[in-house]
Amino acid sequence: MTDTIISSATREVVIGFDRPFVMIGERINPTGRKILAAEMAAGDFSRVEADARAQVAAGAHMLDVNAGIPLADEPAILAKSVQLVQSVTDVPLSIDSSIVAALAAGLAVYKGKALVNSVTGEDERLESVLPLVKKYGAAVVAISNDETGISEDPDVRFEVAKKIVHRAADHGIPASDVVVDPLVMPIGAINKACVQVTHLLRRLRNELKVNTTCGASNISFGLPAREGITAAFLISAMGAGMTSAIMNPLHTEIVRAIMGADVMMGHDPDCMRWIRRFRETPPAQGPAGAAPGEGAARGRREGGHRRRVS
Amino acid sequence: MTDTIISSATREVVIGFDRPFVMIGERINPTGRKILAAEMAAGDFSRVEADARAQVAAGAHMLDVNAGIPLADEPAILAKSVQLVQSVTDVPLSIDSSIVAALAAGLAVYKGKALVNSVTGEDERLESVLPLVKKYGAAVVAISNDETGISEDPDVRFEVAKKIVHRAADHGIPASDVVVDPLVMPIGAINKACVQVTHLLRRLRNELKVNTTCGASNISFGLPAREGITAAFLISAMGAGMTSAIMNPLHTEIVRAIMGADVMMGHDPDCMRWIRRFRETPPAQGPAGAAPGEGAARGRREGGHRRRVS
Repeated sequence: MTDTIISSATREVVIGFDRPFVMIGERINPTGRKILAAEMAAGDFSRVEADARAQVAAGAHMLDVNAGIPLADEPAILAKSVQLVQSVTDVPLSIDSSIVAALAAGLAVYKGKALVNSVTGEDERLESVLPLVKKYGAAVVAISNDETGISEDPDVRFEVAKKIVHRAADHGIPASDVVVDPLVMPIGAINKACVQVTHLLRRLRNELKVNTTCGASNISFGLPAREGITAAFLISAMGAGMTSAIMNPLHTEIVRAIMGADVMMGHDPDCMRWIRRFRETPPAQGPAGAAPGEGAARGRREGGHRRRVS
Repeated sequence: MTDTIISSATREVVIGFDRPFVMIGERINPTGRKILAAEMAAGDFSRVEADARAQVAAGAHMLDVNAGIPLADEPAILAKSVQLVQSVTDVPLSIDSSIVAALAAGLAVYKGKALVNSVTGEDERLESVLPLVKKYGAAVVAISNDETGISEDPDVRFEVAKKIVHRAADHGIPASDVVVDPLVMPIGAINKACVQVTHLLRRLRNELKVNTTCGASNISFGLPAREGITAAFLISAMGAGMTSAIMNPLHTEIVRAIMGADVMMGHDPDCMRWIRRFRETPPAQGPAGAAPGEGAARGRREGGHRRRVS
């Protein structure tokens, strides 16, 4: 059993093998969101604030904060975003950047124990990010690619993950503070994407004994009805041992899938979290002769309860 | 690899390890449906006909036909229902009764190779049902309980399934014509229900090498938002090797889950079945700041395409 503890000033979230899945909200990320990018670059953080509140209300246990805007002062914008999000919510954050100076700026202002997103298996990246992670006593997302790129062979990716975990140990960072991202590819392009990832997830859990995360929506890139594909992926990956994901908590179908899989795994005793969240929903069984989809489409509501992961 | 072939006069469905999951429509069953029961007892089969057509239009590959009405002439009603359903659809049927004379009556009029639902591990039941299955060259659902009841221990249930498979062989019925039902209990009452079933499914697949089915909706009995629980169960069970289920194809969320899991397992090459079914659905990503559930709730449509399992 491995527990990874992430915290804000007042709240702790534990990513762990025998615990409810940890949902990390993905929305605060200007990539592909032109309006948000322009606003953040111009110093307007109102949408960041609204996104933070909405994701936590929808059930996110943590939030990912990314400020990757071309030609902008990313370290300053990321630090500002981290401070703002911490002022309006109490969930722990994942500080997300490909620029080491931005990670450093975010960590410098962060209150609590952050999740640093991310380090790869590239030596230069390892030697610049891991000292920061150690300095701030943070945890880190380890992405299983290196100088040679992303291998389609999950066993090659396993070796990269193992290298990162060992290198982290050299820097005094325990394996319990390394959360491996097995790298999820679009299944529309690589039909074996889920089969590869579930194989890798089992090895990561059983052999390397680390917690895991991923950018879940990658799986459905380019397909119609994306959230149905992402939901099926998350349940499959949870069955193979995945313990957290960066995902969109505003998509009810995704949250339902994760909470349903928690029930399946025995991580929701007496189904109390499920019942609390969905008891307002009318019975699923439609009337005799219900039209296709009738039972599923009607009356779904999200309560916006904030739930504590412990 | 094990293939179980079921057929109507003109159509064949294969339940198999490396194939798309087989959806068996559950609706033609008067249990808990008072109006349907009264109509069937009175000789009015219009609702049976409508249910048959609707389920096939919604994607069912096979239909279960049950005529269990207290004090009614079940053999005659089941035979009539089987004939009627075969006259309006071409999908193969599962002939479902706890009364051996009703199974015999249904089999006598059935055109093709039916799935007999079901035999248990009880000796009396084995010796009355298996000769019928052999006589008509049918396949059979084997429910993993016996005289001692339903064990909560999946390994005890495995032994019951093994006994049925061996007894079937004594009657000249190959293991490929035995589809084991691991028995799904309500997870609201037995929190380990899915953990138990997935353990059993893995053993059934790897050691006994049989195909499997279940009454999927049992898992969500008594819980709110039932179809979300049933969907999560089906994806989990498919990941553990389940190859068919008796389910409600009129619930879009259930069909989406099954088809999504087929994509995950690599059983939908190039996602073509998913794309054909869902391409009319708008992109899942809601606009920035979408309300919870907005992306999931809008614009889902089922095409009602009839798809062939091969």
